Amino acid sequence: MLIVGELINTSRKSVKEAVINRDAAFIAALAKKQADAGATFLDVNCGTMLEDEKASMEWLVRVVREAVTTPLCIDSPDPAVLDAGLSLCGERQTMINSTTLESARYQVVVPLAKKYHSKIIGLCIDDKGMPGHVEDRVAIANALIRKLEEDGVAADDIYIDPLVKPISADITQGMDVLTSIRRIMTENPGAHTICGLTNISFNLPERMQINRTFMIQTMACGMDSYIIDITNRKIAAALYTSTALLGQDKYCRKYLKAFRNGILSE
Amino acid sequence: MLIVGELINTSRKSVKEAVINRDAAFIAALAKKQADAGATFLDVNCGTMLEDEKASMEWLVRVVREAVTTPLCIDSPDPAVLDAGLSLCGERQTMINSTTLESARYQVVVPLAKKYHSKIIGLCIDDKGMPGHVEDRVAIANALIRKLEEDGVAADDIYIDPLVKPISADITQGMDVLTSIRRIMTENPGAHTICGLTNISFNLPERMQINRTFMIQTMACGMDSYIIDITNRKIAAALYTSTALLGQDKYCRKYLKAFRNGILSE
Repeated sequence: MLIVGELINTSRKSVKEAVINRDAAFIAALAKKQADAGATFLDVNCGTMLEDEKASMEWLVRVVREAVTTPLCIDSPDPAVLDAGLSLCGERQTMINSTTLESARYQVVVPLAKKYHSKIIGLCIDDKGMPGHVEDRVAIANALIRKLEEDGVAADDIYIDPLVKPISADITQGMDVLTSIRRIMTENPGAHTICGLTNISFNLPERMQINRTFMIQTMACGMDSYIIDITNRKIAAALYTSTALLGQDKYCRKYLKAFRNGILSE
Repeated sequence: MLIVGELINTSRKSVKEAVINRDAAFIAALAKKQADAGATFLDVNCGTMLEDEKASMEWLVRVVREAVTTPLCIDSPDPAVLDAGLSLCGERQTMINSTTLESARYQVVVPLAKKYHSKIIGLCIDDKGMPGHVEDRVAIANALIRKLEEDGVAADDIYIDPLVKPISADITQGMDVLTSIRRIMTENPGAHTICGLTNISFNLPERMQINRTFMIQTMACGMDSYIIDITNRKIAAALYTSTALLGQDKYCRKYLKAFRNGILSE
């Protein structure tokens, strides 16, 4: 299970302030908190910094790489910012968030994955836009994986995001993603699937109920990577409980450790 | 989704006392509480009453059928007790809990299902005993469904219980059940799968985390019926949230109603 901690993102007010003020202690603490909670990668995103994104990314990567040994997931719409962030990660494993199958984006981002031997998140979007339902999603995912492999990216470094849309707008979206995950994982052995959890519950109350339930459902359908707030006890509890039930936790050791750490109590 | 309320069972101390004291008000209230919470059937089990099981069943069925209009699930190891309970349900739909593929049990219980036009729960057990892993489970389930259909029970009246065993004793048991459900539901269109949730978490702490997570997982794999305590808010929340995410709740109406009723808050 690959867990990308999502908290270092300037769309969050406290993080934006810390970046503006160059408050390294705040960012370092946030990196450490996520690593301690079990994040195996840390997302770094300062896309809201507009004219200052590249300098902010460079500062953030320097702070985070000093604070923890955890690999980084460099997250930007701008290939130059991706390149700047990746170039500062040294020998450490990296991840790129993200490419799509859109020609314009693919041809500038994928060379970075090869240059830095980086893992890469591939969103199910092509030149025709966002997918409609299951067949579109799976077709784009399969084409994207095939193209990445042809271009020299190993299946194990590919993480397909099936694109999660709110069930409040279209009630079929949850089931569509579950079916797509199962097919993508079956039809592409060795590749991975990844998603965030917050889009699914947009515009509905008690979003945490929906987010963690969707995590449990997607895991049961074979999804093996998430971009989440692993410091959230309810999300962590869903993760550890699911892992045990799916037979991926010998003697329930991680579950029992989570229990001793108070993560499972309600 | 068929929800069998599990609370009227003399293995629970308060219910046993109520049965011994012929406290009809207590039993009626328990029936009403479960029906109000969304139970579509009510299990009635007085198997711990030993020498008094038949008379207790007759008393219980009379009390429950007066209290609510909900169909009953008559639950006993003793075919004579099943017959006595079923005979008092009148024209109301009934369910039998349960038969197996064991010859001795099958040949006395299944005729009752036909006599009373009853739905029937079929446990995955045959003359060789409890199943080991997926292949055994699916083979017994398929054979049991085939035999029941040959003997005149409609697929829609068959509810296969794949037999849930604790993951604390064998970490593969959760995944085995999930895989079995998917196969049983795919290979037997029209038939149903059902289970209780408490066995899976036996001998582990924070059992509710495991029970409700297993409910979400099994629903995602196609299970469509449960024997549960639907008056438990955490179980009900898992049910409503899953139902919406699986696309079975148009405009999220049931989810939003559950929210307004305070069921989803944590």
